[in-house]
Amino acid sequence: MSSATLRTTILWAALGALPYQHAVAQQTHTGSDPLPSWNEGATKRAILTFVARVTSPASPDFVAPADRIATFDNDGTLWQEKPLAELIFTLAKLKKMALTDSTLRQTQPFRAALEGDVAYLTGAGDEAMLELLTKTHSGMTEEEFALEVRSFLANARHPTLQRPYTELVYQPMLELLRYLRANGFTTWICSGGTTAFMRVFTGDVYGIPAQQIIGSDLKREPRTVKGRMVIWRLPAIETIDDKNGKPLNIDRQIGQRPLFAAGNVRSGGDVAHLEYSHSRIGPSLQLLVDHDDSDREFAYQEPKGESFAAAVKYGFTIVSMKRDWKTVFPPSPSTAR
Amino acid sequence: MSSATLRTTILWAALGALPYQHAVAQQTHTGSDPLPSWNEGATKRAILTFVARVTSPASPDFVAPADRIATFDNDGTLWQEKPLAELIFTLAKLKKMALTDSTLRQTQPFRAALEGDVAYLTGAGDEAMLELLTKTHSGMTEEEFALEVRSFLANARHPTLQRPYTELVYQPMLELLRYLRANGFTTWICSGGTTAFMRVFTGDVYGIPAQQIIGSDLKREPRTVKGRMVIWRLPAIETIDDKNGKPLNIDRQIGQRPLFAAGNVRSGGDVAHLEYSHSRIGPSLQLLVDHDDSDREFAYQEPKGESFAAAVKYGFTIVSMKRDWKTVFPPSPSTAR
Repeated sequence: MSSATLRTTILWAALGALPYQHAVAQQTHTGSDPLPSWNEGATKRAILTFVARVTSPASPDFVAPADRIATFDNDGTLWQEKPLAELIFTLAKLKKMALTDSTLRQTQPFRAALEGDVAYLTGAGDEAMLELLTKTHSGMTEEEFALEVRSFLANARHPTLQRPYTELVYQPMLELLRYLRANGFTTWICSGGTTAFMRVFTGDVYGIPAQQIIGSDLKREPRTVKGRMVIWRLPAIETIDDKNGKPLNIDRQIGQRPLFAAGNVRSGGDVAHLEYSHSRIGPSLQLLVDHDDSDREFAYQEPKGESFAAAVKYGFTIVSMKRDWKTVFPPSPSTAR
Repeated sequence: MSSATLRTTILWAALGALPYQHAVAQQTHTGSDPLPSWNEGATKRAILTFVARVTSPASPDFVAPADRIATFDNDGTLWQEKPLAELIFTLAKLKKMALTDSTLRQTQPFRAALEGDVAYLTGAGDEAMLELLTKTHSGMTEEEFALEVRSFLANARHPTLQRPYTELVYQPMLELLRYLRANGFTTWICSGGTTAFMRVFTGDVYGIPAQQIIGSDLKREPRTVKGRMVIWRLPAIETIDDKNGKPLNIDRQIGQRPLFAAGNVRSGGDVAHLEYSHSRIGPSLQLLVDHDDSDREFAYQEPKGESFAAAVKYGFTIVSMKRDWKTVFPPSPSTAR
């Protein structure tokens, strides 16, 4: 390339970059910051720059609205996960079931769960967990299950933070969801919790409708009950929406790769999810939330470190709760009054 | 009830009915008929009345836009199914594979399919069909499969109607899809064809995006190919979206019952689909397309008659292609020029 051509190229590249710089500047200089709970810094800038880059019509990386797919893990990415709300629901349901079924107190892993035998449950691992899940989540219609979850969420309080689980969502992420939708993105959840559990609150809390929830699922079958066709929940697993299950279920339900994907550090459960987005041909952005804030939430790491290793390898953007978030949870409705 | 109360009730009922009659009248009297390819009659009236009834804010049966879910079978409901386009694709692909894999000519059911041995294939039934399907649809990435389907659809012509399959869609149904969307419905496909096959053309042809396609699926797995994560198609069935599979997959992907559902008479494949919609609490409408038009398309019946039996039992609205449709196919782009 001659030096004249090089200069021209640089000039064009600079002109080409203008629209996004302008777009970002607009959002931060007019006082209408779309992400007020995010501190200024590299993470916030990465998000704003990326959105401007894929939505500005003049950008060479412009992506049509139909292809602006954003997927979010739920537990630990959109709301707190210490403890998992669905695990607390599972234990509460099991206690209720034990009142009328005395065999549960004599059979493992139900006995251990009822007696709080953490050592047994830790040793028994994932299989015991799935047995607890299928036992408590089955034997009823989809509609009946939704009513049980609704009642649980209305009454349960987090053991240490003392607020309903649906209030322990991350304010910066609520702003991010709204900001992406305002920029033509379709927002999806892709999380390890069960689809039916999440669908009960994701519409009201995140503004994400039932059809945009991808989760783990029990096997089910249509049955006729009192002359009406219902979907009956069976005590077996159909799909686990974790690790490699996430790209598969995204492919099945969305049919295209996420342009934007967000997960968190804890178990490596989002590595495949974010890698799948990163392998998209063309631009993409991946966020990985790091729980490093013991003062305002919790600080925990991942035993094997797969998430950070993948972040280094693929260039995922790390979100530090401590440094990047001005606020963690929304103000409590009860204190705000 | 006293006769005075009864009169009041009738009066209120009549007033209550006014908004929809008005809405229907508007659409037919202003000359902007939303369904111009539908003949006037009971079927068209049932559709227009139903849509007005669930969308007029004053109606006691008003349904919020988020709950206006419409599901359509594809083969025989939105486009012709004699023969099934995906079956023709399967046979063409098998012939191509046989050029480099001579074992196919020595193994059933591939040999029968390559030699056009209809007697063998009829006797071998569904299992042989699934073997042909998994053999030809697997061993590649989702993206590679989509390219193969795209190329097939661009070049293939219907054996007797001599037009591309994507032109052999039903003009009245295209109008119905548009009409429903204009009234706040979200339109979905729920069909026995494979999801990946349908997604190639449903956006352009029906205006239905990839994430609103529910179909049969092969098992798949994420793999890393040349440093990039891809979804690899495996030679096994994950789900058959037919009969009882339809309500299950609708529940999984949409999370609510269809307010409006359409299928057709041929195999009873849509009975559970329409019954699931009919079991919705509140209003709902089901259409069942009857292929009774040997002049303009084909006339065929269902051997066991389950679809008509269900239509009588649940009150599904029968669409007679012969009587209800003014036109069957859109004008050919090549003749229209």
